[in-house]
Amino acid sequence: MSSSRRVPQRAALLAIGDEVLRGEISNTNDAFIAERLFELGFEIAEQVVVSDDPQAIRAALVRLRAEMDIIVSTGGLGPTEDDRTVDTVAELLATGTHADEPSLEAMKKRFATHGFEMTPNNLRQVRVPNGAEALLNAAGIAPGFAVQLGGAEAIFLPGVPREMEKIFIDEVLPRLTRRLADIGGPPPAVRTWHLYGMGESHIDHRLAGILNGIEGATLHFRTSAPVNHVKLVVRQGDAEAAKAVVDKVDAEIRKRIGPGIYGVDGETFVGAVAKALRAQEATLAFAESCTGGLAGELITTEAGASNFFRGSVVAYANDVKTGVLGVKPETIADFGAVSEPAAREMAEGVKRVCGSSVAVAITGVAGPEGGAPDKPVGTVCFAICGPGTTRTSTKLFAGTRERVRMAAAYYALDLARRYFDTRKR
Amino acid sequence: MSSSRRVPQRAALLAIGDEVLRGEISNTNDAFIAERLFELGFEIAEQVVVSDDPQAIRAALVRLRAEMDIIVSTGGLGPTEDDRTVDTVAELLATGTHADEPSLEAMKKRFATHGFEMTPNNLRQVRVPNGAEALLNAAGIAPGFAVQLGGAEAIFLPGVPREMEKIFIDEVLPRLTRRLADIGGPPPAVRTWHLYGMGESHIDHRLAGILNGIEGATLHFRTSAPVNHVKLVVRQGDAEAAKAVVDKVDAEIRKRIGPGIYGVDGETFVGAVAKALRAQEATLAFAESCTGGLAGELITTEAGASNFFRGSVVAYANDVKTGVLGVKPETIADFGAVSEPAAREMAEGVKRVCGSSVAVAITGVAGPEGGAPDKPVGTVCFAICGPGTTRTSTKLFAGTRERVRMAAAYYALDLARRYFDTRKR
Repeated sequence: MSSSRRVPQRAALLAIGDEVLRGEISNTNDAFIAERLFELGFEIAEQVVVSDDPQAIRAALVRLRAEMDIIVSTGGLGPTEDDRTVDTVAELLATGTHADEPSLEAMKKRFATHGFEMTPNNLRQVRVPNGAEALLNAAGIAPGFAVQLGGAEAIFLPGVPREMEKIFIDEVLPRLTRRLADIGGPPPAVRTWHLYGMGESHIDHRLAGILNGIEGATLHFRTSAPVNHVKLVVRQGDAEAAKAVVDKVDAEIRKRIGPGIYGVDGETFVGAVAKALRAQEATLAFAESCTGGLAGELITTEAGASNFFRGSVVAYANDVKTGVLGVKPETIADFGAVSEPAAREMAEGVKRVCGSSVAVAITGVAGPEGGAPDKPVGTVCFAICGPGTTRTSTKLFAGTRERVRMAAAYYALDLARRYFDTRKR
Repeated sequence: MSSSRRVPQRAALLAIGDEVLRGEISNTNDAFIAERLFELGFEIAEQVVVSDDPQAIRAALVRLRAEMDIIVSTGGLGPTEDDRTVDTVAELLATGTHADEPSLEAMKKRFATHGFEMTPNNLRQVRVPNGAEALLNAAGIAPGFAVQLGGAEAIFLPGVPREMEKIFIDEVLPRLTRRLADIGGPPPAVRTWHLYGMGESHIDHRLAGILNGIEGATLHFRTSAPVNHVKLVVRQGDAEAAKAVVDKVDAEIRKRIGPGIYGVDGETFVGAVAKALRAQEATLAFAESCTGGLAGELITTEAGASNFFRGSVVAYANDVKTGVLGVKPETIADFGAVSEPAAREMAEGVKRVCGSSVAVAITGVAGPEGGAPDKPVGTVCFAICGPGTTRTSTKLFAGTRERVRMAAAYYALDLARRYFDTRKR
């Protein structure tokens, strides 16, 4: 049966599993898949979640195969009796199932390495419907598989996000890219800019009218506090023309936003901080109070952080501020622990005790208690010191304790990211 | 038209909006709603996400009204032309729309307070279909509303999570509780146990057969690494009988799992650590290496942590371990920075410099680089010291850098949680 050649191709996501259906786990798979399908150029027409019940799976597939060009399904490929996806698809195809040889071999090898014993359930897990094309699972046991269901190409993947993402990137993305190329439409050109230090409405305002006169291009905003993402999708002309539009908009966005852009296309905020420090061969230390260790935790999410990160002192109690960091008791008495003078002495103290070239201090009121009229909840004082003079600043962050702490840690990291730029000016 | 009286009542969740459909924002609303509907006693039969397109909304409602007893819809109630839910429902009911007076009044008052001007779009946002029952939105502008669609009661809520949750708790939960009471079934009795220190398969094994001979009770497992949750739902007899079953299972679960249970019904792991420390009037400090500050960050998510948490030294570089914590250079030379002797000196050092009564040290190989044959990636050494002798231990955690660090931080917190218990034995 030949697949539909309509453009854009209509895609549905089908998640199978009681845990998602009942809200016991969040359906993060669908956002992952939808974002990538959309970038490839598919129209995502529907997302559906159904239970492990074969009748429910069957009814959903029968409905979707009549309406969609592709279906991407996740879940129901586990080892237990509850996992019924393979059998249900085989029944729909009026065929049987067999063990996928490459997956079986990979499993045997894996189990032998770890000295595990294979159970009948494990053997169950490497089955695919006869006639299906297996998609090797390099991150787990159960292979994914692809079949033609009526007019739709249906792709089935495990529900474990790590395994699903691995198969999706290794096997499904190239497959769908080829499919679209066969149909004739070039994939849209896509670029995402990652921004720190501006609210969504502020970004929206700065970018107003930026697409005026450009056909077939759309901008999409996503907030993941405290950072924002702006995605441009250009579905126009050939790949080269679309790329030219992206480059033109890129130049204009950089002009309008400036150094608030810390990266593009998946570059991380922490990676940008690390890059700035590495470029200067600088080493970093933090003195943290209200963030409790979060700034250090964030910077060390970067593998190889030991090249530039020396350590932190989390001075939650005031006598740790004085005893370990050498903050003067009279500074705390005169100005309070949440003050720019205290932040300055914390930064200079941690630079000295950790032997870093740059140090940032954070001291604030994360709440919900501890606010005062002159220092309400959300008040955070910062200091950064390095080869030159020490600079201090005070910010008022909105939101919950968690939000305030996260905002403060990001602000501290951003001070480090921009330290050498701003020194030059 | 009278609503179906079948038990359990079948519920569908319908999310309306291109942002969710395209994966630009995660669909957290459905997990929130599904979990609560399931606990009330509904069978969640399906979750669907469709675009803002009126045809797609209409098709989904026409299909679901034939199959479901209730439909809970989110999204599409915003101020813009893209928000088409109200009009689409009105068309399905062959009626018009009107401004909901209480919502209009509330909006006027709100805008007057802030000195905002009302736009035609705002007026658009307080409309509901004629004949609908409006559900006041105390957290925003657009009211929710309930209508009968064929055999199904359909409830429409805004997509903004804060607004949706407010209306859901204020208006929808009482409404659905009454609905179920009318039909005759008491709500199920529910309890959730929170566990640390055991894998899901291990928990599964220990709890095998625990519901034998108990009718109408089900156990549900959820992993949120490194903790696990076990939820019991009892749909049997009257409320008192169901509660008795819950208590009986509670006693048995505690017997089988022991101190791995750190709380029930939403109590947090960090809260349990804080409780144990407060009960002993103990104070805590951390010496962290591979976790970069995560242990301190976690413990300070607890508001009021300053009562028991003094601070941390994040000794990422070896000379911070020696310089600030007083680890002997020969200890690192002889045993390595990732070793129990180093962990011991780190814990004793941070206890001294932070002046705490208890201190925990973490030093390990988080990966992906830095592993060695005798200390592979995932190897983490711990020490805890307090009033008595210092205890050390070594664990091998599996998974990514992020997983290893999180597992190590939780293990360190758990050492503190159980320190006084294990000392007594």
